[in-house]
Amino acid sequence: MPINREDTRWNGWGWVKAHSPVEGRDAVWRWISEALQVPELPHTPAKALDEVRLADSRLVGAARDELADGIGGANVRDSAYERAAHARGKSYLDLLYLRAGNLSDAPDAVVYPHSSDDVVRLLRWAEQHRVAVVPFAGGSSVVGGLTGSAPGFAASIALDLTEMNRFIGLDEVSLLATAEAGIYGVDFEAALAAKGFKHGHHPQSFEFSTLGGWIAARGAGQQSNRYGRAEDWFAGGEVATSKGVWSLPALPASAAGPDLRALVAGSEGALGVITSATVRVHRVPEASDYRAFLFADFASGANALRRMIQADVPVATMRLSDPDETFFYQALAKAGQVPGFKDRLQAQYLKTMGMGERPCALILGFEGERELVSYGSKAAQRILRSCGGISAGRGPAKRWYQGRFHGPYSRDPMMDRGLGVDTLETATTWSNVERLCTDVRGALLGAMQASAPVKGARGLVFAHISHSYVDGASLYFTYIFPRNLNDELGQWRAIKTAASDAIVRAGGTISHHHGVGEDHLAWLEAEKGAQGIAILRAIKRELDPAGVLNPGKLVSTMDLSRETDIK
Amino acid sequence: MPINREDTRWNGWGWVKAHSPVEGRDAVWRWISEALQVPELPHTPAKALDEVRLADSRLVGAARDELADGIGGANVRDSAYERAAHARGKSYLDLLYLRAGNLSDAPDAVVYPHSSDDVVRLLRWAEQHRVAVVPFAGGSSVVGGLTGSAPGFAASIALDLTEMNRFIGLDEVSLLATAEAGIYGVDFEAALAAKGFKHGHHPQSFEFSTLGGWIAARGAGQQSNRYGRAEDWFAGGEVATSKGVWSLPALPASAAGPDLRALVAGSEGALGVITSATVRVHRVPEASDYRAFLFADFASGANALRRMIQADVPVATMRLSDPDETFFYQALAKAGQVPGFKDRLQAQYLKTMGMGERPCALILGFEGERELVSYGSKAAQRILRSCGGISAGRGPAKRWYQGRFHGPYSRDPMMDRGLGVDTLETATTWSNVERLCTDVRGALLGAMQASAPVKGARGLVFAHISHSYVDGASLYFTYIFPRNLNDELGQWRAIKTAASDAIVRAGGTISHHHGVGEDHLAWLEAEKGAQGIAILRAIKRELDPAGVLNPGKLVSTMDLSRETDIK
Repeated sequence: MPINREDTRWNGWGWVKAHSPVEGRDAVWRWISEALQVPELPHTPAKALDEVRLADSRLVGAARDELADGIGGANVRDSAYERAAHARGKSYLDLLYLRAGNLSDAPDAVVYPHSSDDVVRLLRWAEQHRVAVVPFAGGSSVVGGLTGSAPGFAASIALDLTEMNRFIGLDEVSLLATAEAGIYGVDFEAALAAKGFKHGHHPQSFEFSTLGGWIAARGAGQQSNRYGRAEDWFAGGEVATSKGVWSLPALPASAAGPDLRALVAGSEGALGVITSATVRVHRVPEASDYRAFLFADFASGANALRRMIQADVPVATMRLSDPDETFFYQALAKAGQVPGFKDRLQAQYLKTMGMGERPCALILGFEGERELVSYGSKAAQRILRSCGGISAGRGPAKRWYQGRFHGPYSRDPMMDRGLGVDTLETATTWSNVERLCTDVRGALLGAMQASAPVKGARGLVFAHISHSYVDGASLYFTYIFPRNLNDELGQWRAIKTAASDAIVRAGGTISHHHGVGEDHLAWLEAEKGAQGIAILRAIKRELDPAGVLNPGKLVSTMDLSRETDIK
Repeated sequence: MPINREDTRWNGWGWVKAHSPVEGRDAVWRWISEALQVPELPHTPAKALDEVRLADSRLVGAARDELADGIGGANVRDSAYERAAHARGKSYLDLLYLRAGNLSDAPDAVVYPHSSDDVVRLLRWAEQHRVAVVPFAGGSSVVGGLTGSAPGFAASIALDLTEMNRFIGLDEVSLLATAEAGIYGVDFEAALAAKGFKHGHHPQSFEFSTLGGWIAARGAGQQSNRYGRAEDWFAGGEVATSKGVWSLPALPASAAGPDLRALVAGSEGALGVITSATVRVHRVPEASDYRAFLFADFASGANALRRMIQADVPVATMRLSDPDETFFYQALAKAGQVPGFKDRLQAQYLKTMGMGERPCALILGFEGERELVSYGSKAAQRILRSCGGISAGRGPAKRWYQGRFHGPYSRDPMMDRGLGVDTLETATTWSNVERLCTDVRGALLGAMQASAPVKGARGLVFAHISHSYVDGASLYFTYIFPRNLNDELGQWRAIKTAASDAIVRAGGTISHHHGVGEDHLAWLEAEKGAQGIAILRAIKRELDPAGVLNPGKLVSTMDLSRETDIK
């Protein structure tokens, strides 16, 4: 079932009624304020929707009538909540705009198609009337992939796919499932689970993201070592453009020219609209085994990860936090508590085991056939021991697993207290992981300090390896800083630029699984090359000649620094 | 070291001095003649090069001087042997032309670049002088990927990459090796082996194919389950076009828009020239385990393959022959021998084990860490037993492994005896394997019978599953038929068309690892869709605006039925 948007925050993360793990815990805020070296955290609430002025919809008259005729009047919606909830995604920058009540990016209407043909018809209408179309599903982009503003267009609409949510079928022999692209991940898994199957793509946005969104953003779930990245499990599907519906057959492998499915994964709504997908699924695993381990330092842990994956140990997930991240979550959890006997005992044990003051935590998970999990777990433990890892038991792994979608819920309370909190992620080869990590951390710390609103204040950065490959790994950074309330946009841009420049200089990718959106567009050419960009433009011209699809994303000549003030 | 072309057959497969496994064995020929129901096999030798007229090179005067200036005079070669050896690839159709002494497709010259910049310069020269450029390396295409004829061009050249063969470097930590694209597979493996590493891409053409050729054709080696298909191990590289050198960074994973490496894998020399590549490699495996098994029927064997791969059993290779193929190789090997006691004992044993008259043979191989091989082998045997498989020991697997590149050497002696022999391959989902196999076999048998030169004669078809995936498998067909010496081309076309139409109707890919070339071009749109073809054309226009690169391949409006007689 599609989620009722009114049950979710139009200007924040998640369910309106959700409980935040940090709300109401004064000790947490004291701890953060000390860590950032700011005297106190200000009260900076978001504007309520009824305080916000929403421009009149530009979609009126004959053009609107024609749209309503083509797609059904009930499927063209323009209530204030609909328009506000589709104005932007969930990036830090998006939240700065939304919380300030700046809805300049709100679409003139939200349109809900119910078939691929609906989408084709709508795109032809949009070309004719010069209306920008932003494909929208879960709306959980954290890189500015859904910004609705489109200078030069007569109007803009959000094309909400979430009512195209049918589970179409399952080939149990070939382990392939087909569904309409707007199905929420949760519903897709429920439909599969009822038949004994599992897709397994569970990103942190799992509660609010869709099958088509995962493909469009070329995402990766937390168990991607077992279940694959979007481009691994995306076997075929349908993509609607104004030229018709493009069908990509689900073939296990082919040498019939380049694999054009690769152009769909990562297309970010700018090349076509994914309307259905056939994806690789698995039988519900017989067994799973999640455990935590500790390392004295990050390099030892990273070495263990590399050796496990290069020895083909069949892991589902490996998540290695750096000392700062390990410490931070521990500190947040225990903030305000007086250390007890158990804590002292634990500290003593870690010291005895040579873990030092600031160990690194690893969450290691296996899923699959019982024999495979058993083999993998044993093979992993041999390598972990030889790299200096010690067991921290199943408890921390269980807590991580249960809370693995909760992280984003801490952002809104932080933003209510004058804090900025953002994440970014990249990937590089194993031999370059340390350099990239050092450089990005340095760039973030430097930019946060330089842009701090209070002299002497600083930011916090912590990182983890979130995904591992035979040839390299991804690094995921979270950073928290006191907001400069006089220039939030400039501060964001300075920090983002410093970090992105550092990534490009160090040879990392500008995004490992979040995507490009508007936020990373300026750094895309450094990675793709001038010819790569020219190819993307050529494909865009072919599939979207009028340029109505998600203008300003992925392939764009728009000046994205057009706005300098969000108020 | 590049191979001296004069040591290889310009009009056949492999080394001039190689011993063919069927040559000189009269019993084999008697067996085949009986199986095909033809009274006798005619003597149909190929023309020698000195019997063949080669048109004068059209590359003369200022254009040739300018080329020689730009790239070095010694690197522009036009001896008869050079031109003949670069006229075509090694498809059955190619051999029909070459053996008949038809060198209408010979290039006007063969050019050997030594750098990416050389290639860029040459492509600019080619655009200016309207010269077709056919990128050429090992020359082992079996789908018409290298045909030099290019109507409408002032001349054509073969761009032979095999002197761009430097091993550039190895990142032992990230398991990434970089080399120039013209390096032969054998040399690449030797350079890696000297350092304790292995690439593992070993197609049947391994002796004569190159790193760049593997990527351009989007190939798969015989151990692709462990070492990956070309698109799996191709991590980055350089592609030269007339617009410059396009550099694709080697990133383990990224969500920075579509993965444009996928456009390089399978580009078949029509979009750019791959000049270097960074590829994923492995440590030399600690252990390997190859064994043979038998099944009473193909469906049971296929079921075992599917269950192994879906249970994540870490196989390196699984090759399941159908009853006809199992019987054929056995019959060829034993042709002319009187069955002895051991044969009768073996037959009795198989009967006791419920194998029937015509069992199917499986070659199952593991490579890797000792523990992994041991785990895999045990896990596989549990599944094999439960699917009715019985062990046939290590002997047949060892013989297969040792002879795994020898198959193509039987073709020339067959063609010397009025026989046609060709192969084709496809892939589909597991639930569709049986239908595809039945349909293609039926189409081949029907077309071979209809086009037979003698009434009552028939063709032979046999098949094996060559590669397996979680969601499907590839089917590899070999077929042998009496040639219709009055219309060899028409006969080839009739058989090829029948089989390809059957593949498309049954939902298979037109090629699993051979590629498109000219032979499969007519069926490409059925698989890629009109929009897919439009996208490939748009990319071609961007990267090769003058259309000089490998005209008539992959992206073409040329009429490929232009020639109706090869004499």
